[in-house]
Amino acid sequence: MDAGAAQPHWRRVAILGVGLIGGSLARVLKAQGAADEIVGCGRQQQNLETARQLGIIDQFVLDPVQAVREADLVLLGAPVLATAALLAEIAPHLAEQAVVTDVASVKGVVVEAARQQLGEKLARFVPAHPIAGAETSGAAASRADLFVDHRVILTPLAQTAADALEQVRALWRLTGALVEEMSVQRHDQIFAATSHLPHLLAFTLVNAVARQGGEAGIIHYAAGGFRDMTRIAASDPTLWHDIFLTNKDALLQSLEQFQQELEVFRQAIVEDDSAQISKMLLHSRTMRNKLSNSN
Amino acid sequence: MDAGAAQPHWRRVAILGVGLIGGSLARVLKAQGAADEIVGCGRQQQNLETARQLGIIDQFVLDPVQAVREADLVLLGAPVLATAALLAEIAPHLAEQAVVTDVASVKGVVVEAARQQLGEKLARFVPAHPIAGAETSGAAASRADLFVDHRVILTPLAQTAADALEQVRALWRLTGALVEEMSVQRHDQIFAATSHLPHLLAFTLVNAVARQGGEAGIIHYAAGGFRDMTRIAASDPTLWHDIFLTNKDALLQSLEQFQQELEVFRQAIVEDDSAQISKMLLHSRTMRNKLSNSN
Repeated sequence: MDAGAAQPHWRRVAILGVGLIGGSLARVLKAQGAADEIVGCGRQQQNLETARQLGIIDQFVLDPVQAVREADLVLLGAPVLATAALLAEIAPHLAEQAVVTDVASVKGVVVEAARQQLGEKLARFVPAHPIAGAETSGAAASRADLFVDHRVILTPLAQTAADALEQVRALWRLTGALVEEMSVQRHDQIFAATSHLPHLLAFTLVNAVARQGGEAGIIHYAAGGFRDMTRIAASDPTLWHDIFLTNKDALLQSLEQFQQELEVFRQAIVEDDSAQISKMLLHSRTMRNKLSNSN
Repeated sequence: MDAGAAQPHWRRVAILGVGLIGGSLARVLKAQGAADEIVGCGRQQQNLETARQLGIIDQFVLDPVQAVREADLVLLGAPVLATAALLAEIAPHLAEQAVVTDVASVKGVVVEAARQQLGEKLARFVPAHPIAGAETSGAAASRADLFVDHRVILTPLAQTAADALEQVRALWRLTGALVEEMSVQRHDQIFAATSHLPHLLAFTLVNAVARQGGEAGIIHYAAGGFRDMTRIAASDPTLWHDIFLTNKDALLQSLEQFQQELEVFRQAIVEDDSAQISKMLLHSRTMRNKLSNSN
């Protein structure tokens, strides 16, 4: 990036994983003229060809090492475990001043991989997590406006270089996202509670109802509430497999708090405790309405 | 109703509870010219005045006994426990051939009340449950198209008179709903699994996250999935209080099955069982997509 430039600019951006998120970032860079050249890289050649035909990337290679060698900005657009593996693979081949950033939904395990693999270059790594997504995937689903007014959380480390952090802030400002910063640990706790746990419950609810429904066609009676509640159960299994494995501690802690709350509710039902049930329902409605009225 | 008429018609319809459901039924009766007179009754005089001003009802009284005395069709548009209480109150005052029906979300407890209170008139009672609703309530929120293409479940008893059942079928056909019949027990089991359990989980999730969020403002990070999943937590507390208390056995059974499924998932996470996690996620996505593609 040109130091001091009002508008960020990179010579060569490598995007490792040109899916919904990586592809949408590429579109923003193109639309804003913020990169001379964008090199895509991934495991599915067909997807990369689609991305090139759509003009999202300028060229692609299949080897991550080749992709990053001359890049001044490296975007890892992969699920959690693939992101950690990519860090190990590319570490020895990064240009000295290249900035590396990612979009993985769990930060702890990615930062741990970065610490182990990047050595001195750890200062050039800026962990990030855009809170945007959809049930669609692949470069063809990408959109330049995917991140507008969505939050993106950066979790810089004590070692992160100020200029590297500023470049990644500038990148995300280009997308129209609301850029926030917090610690790695706080990020993983917050998203365990507000995203990973709800997904776990949705997946489990669908499986539990499907098991009951096998004999009775029950699932046909699943109306609006159930549909809303389980829409997220159609999300990408690979993504969620990685999240559940890698944010294990925070997720299990959130789950335990949920189970305690559920046990209080269950006991109130078992004991016909009308007052306690009313209290919990009113509290829930009040909190849910606060959420609707807040940003 | 005129016997043999292609279009059902009632002289005087009493609607006890002119809320979203009762008000929407009144609108359909008006729109289809299916009733000479509609008498509303309820505890909130302001709501009844609104209903009369909107032309949804012709007149109102505050005493249920007075409302039903000369009615040939009595619609109970109240939550579960109020429906059971109304049956007791009106039983001695019903006209001999009057048909009585309700819209409560739990059928077992309402049918039990009908058995205890109605005596010989049990044959004139047709339990019903329209699967429609919204987070809004009151007569002002009612709409003539509320039930179009929604299911309505009738749970007739062995004692139900054929002509009474046919009148209630005809009533619901007027609304554009899809009329189905099943046993009381099966109804309460199916809705425990597909509606009551999801609501219980949504209420609990909001409370659990709010508890964690008190110290951390966590709830501000609750994104799309959480919002979708907890929209139903803003539903009417009185309605859900009654449902949880009165469909207790089926709900606790569904909850137990959910908890078993959740425990399998939790164990897979605890043990880093990648294959088991993948299997459960794929199963969930497959079942959820089937649901999206079905009616």
